[in-house]
Amino acid sequence: MQVLTSNQIQTVAFQWPAGFYSDGIHIGLRKAKKDFGWLFSKVPAAAAGTYTTNQFQAAPTKLTKTMINQDHQLQGLLLNSAVANSCTGQQGWENALQEQQWLANKLAVDPSLIGVASTGLIGAQLPMDLIKNGLPQLTPTKSDAVTYAVLTTDQHPKTISVQCELSGHLVTLTGFAKGSGMIHPKMATMLGFVTTDAQVDGSVLQHMLSDNVDSTFNQITVDGDTSTNDMVVTLANGLADNPSLTAGTPDYDIFNQALHLVLSSLAKQIAADGEGATKLVECNVTQAATRMDGQQVAKAIVGSNLVKAAIFGEDPNWGRIISTIGATDAELDIDHVDIAMNGIPLVADSLALPFDEAAVKATLGQSQVVIDVDLHAGDATGQAWGCDLTYNYVKINASYHT
Amino acid sequence: MQVLTSNQIQTVAFQWPAGFYSDGIHIGLRKAKKDFGWLFSKVPAAAAGTYTTNQFQAAPTKLTKTMINQDHQLQGLLLNSAVANSCTGQQGWENALQEQQWLANKLAVDPSLIGVASTGLIGAQLPMDLIKNGLPQLTPTKSDAVTYAVLTTDQHPKTISVQCELSGHLVTLTGFAKGSGMIHPKMATMLGFVTTDAQVDGSVLQHMLSDNVDSTFNQITVDGDTSTNDMVVTLANGLADNPSLTAGTPDYDIFNQALHLVLSSLAKQIAADGEGATKLVECNVTQAATRMDGQQVAKAIVGSNLVKAAIFGEDPNWGRIISTIGATDAELDIDHVDIAMNGIPLVADSLALPFDEAAVKATLGQSQVVIDVDLHAGDATGQAWGCDLTYNYVKINASYHT
Repeated sequence: MQVLTSNQIQTVAFQWPAGFYSDGIHIGLRKAKKDFGWLFSKVPAAAAGTYTTNQFQAAPTKLTKTMINQDHQLQGLLLNSAVANSCTGQQGWENALQEQQWLANKLAVDPSLIGVASTGLIGAQLPMDLIKNGLPQLTPTKSDAVTYAVLTTDQHPKTISVQCELSGHLVTLTGFAKGSGMIHPKMATMLGFVTTDAQVDGSVLQHMLSDNVDSTFNQITVDGDTSTNDMVVTLANGLADNPSLTAGTPDYDIFNQALHLVLSSLAKQIAADGEGATKLVECNVTQAATRMDGQQVAKAIVGSNLVKAAIFGEDPNWGRIISTIGATDAELDIDHVDIAMNGIPLVADSLALPFDEAAVKATLGQSQVVIDVDLHAGDATGQAWGCDLTYNYVKINASYHT
Repeated sequence: MQVLTSNQIQTVAFQWPAGFYSDGIHIGLRKAKKDFGWLFSKVPAAAAGTYTTNQFQAAPTKLTKTMINQDHQLQGLLLNSAVANSCTGQQGWENALQEQQWLANKLAVDPSLIGVASTGLIGAQLPMDLIKNGLPQLTPTKSDAVTYAVLTTDQHPKTISVQCELSGHLVTLTGFAKGSGMIHPKMATMLGFVTTDAQVDGSVLQHMLSDNVDSTFNQITVDGDTSTNDMVVTLANGLADNPSLTAGTPDYDIFNQALHLVLSSLAKQIAADGEGATKLVECNVTQAATRMDGQQVAKAIVGSNLVKAAIFGEDPNWGRIISTIGATDAELDIDHVDIAMNGIPLVADSLALPFDEAAVKATLGQSQVVIDVDLHAGDATGQAWGCDLTYNYVKINASYHT
């Protein structure tokens, strides 16, 4: 993939791509905060999605996946927080279908062009009266209100807008996500959405999304729990009027990098705002035997409770890092592993280096901690993001769910 | 395996089997507590071991494994806490060999009959002068002092003695272990030791140990981190003079069940005394498709941070349990999973049951929480043990290691 100069892809102020509208309102699912919203394109959009691998896939996730897989087209999405509509049986499935039908009626489109997404408490049914009453209140705005309506225990909305030029056509990509948190009861029901006015075939978009999710959303961890509702959906409505994207062209590479930028930004925002987190932790693995090894090692390190607690305590405890590396099945040269934290080398050839502990401890007080691991086993790399393990994580997740 | 009546295997007060001696003293590795000890049999014993799968296996673990694998014979073990002698390179290996030689000299036996075990800080070299000076102070006692000398952040020693009769010969099995904790720096360097005066061939003993460790020590988790020093060693010196054990005989079954009782008791004691733990959590999975499925699901549940935090908060949050089940690759009938906590049914056929939340919450305040999961997918079972995730876990593991 070509390396892009910064003027080819630019992060811009939050804005929706041409033809996308949305809204976010409060209908009483949460106590006072926004809890219900929609997002739609004025024309049908090419659609791609990636979904949780949890065997208990929630009804809205299953429905949206089915719609997208039919012909990779979607026009609108109905979104809610507070109730995940997961483990809700036949009633939950019928409620998801009802939501789909209601939004199809409102937009006057075929139900097959409508998806739904929910996040919140597992096992509770959606209060369909509140949703039915809320639907007429949704208006087509260009505001960012919908990015608030999907939040649960998140501290901030996660958003990014980037622009690039494809064959002389200005293209905008705008993404938003909800992270790990909840009101009731703190399931990491992660949702991500990317909209763009680029013109791209649905199956091409699906390939690009799946490929990029592997190295972004699939490489973050807050607590190691894969929820029943996780989903990342990308809609491309083509209104930028660029020539449709084809693999191997410069336009494809530019758009793919812009998409990667959006997805990795959202992923990092989710990790940094993990439940109770005070720090974003990034792990970069180099010289791995394979990409899978690199990604596995990076994710194991940012996922280790012992490493996470040490980082909360600003403790350069590299023994926990090397032990975590050794507990993976990645190919290792066990006498030649190097570790650095925030650029300060701690371990060379698997042995302790002398280092200025006060200096390392001081850098670990920053809001971002970077762990570099060199495996000396090949030329592949891997990257992952997580957060520290804090008193507040335990507090948030120990409180009673009713 | 036949079901034994309680009078065939009895738990008795702590005592060493015939011919075993030990001691535990303070030599300055820790500030004030016992940190150094030995354990030996007056005659060579059949020996079996299981060892960490971590690729960075510590020097003492590697040395003891090599000795046992030669001919399944061992006579003595030198033990220390505070320094794990892990990731210590050639110097660490030579130090382990030196310890072995010193103890061989003291016992006047061949070094191939000596093992060593260390637990504590990764990456630091053993202070060999302290060990050399400490060795002459070790005396052959029948006390339980050695069970203290291996502890780090453990709150209590973990011990058990059981007796059974094999063909008219009284046989004693005594086990002890150290759990998850540390002084410096809190690695879960788990060590377990079982001594017995039973007569049993080393390879038979190895088979029994490996088989029982799978369903006991390998089914506990405190924080999901596999250390570099984990090891369980069993010594059988034959002084009970029973006919040597052979598979398929009643004696074999009795001894095997006694061994299972010792190992599962030590494993549960480690889980209950996990870092910061206030509760032992036991998960029993029934009607799994395979034993591996049952064990995987049970271990995933007791290992989930979200489940562990909910149990600390006395929150019957079954959504986290079912989500954890779904995140495994166990064969599931996703519409027919049942969940109960402390005997109170919460979920039937994967759907919420009405339950008295105050009553469930009250039972979750007890020091032991039992989660029962019925997968309706076969006739295999699985069991695992863990503990809750508490403020104190974070506190213990966030403190600076120097």
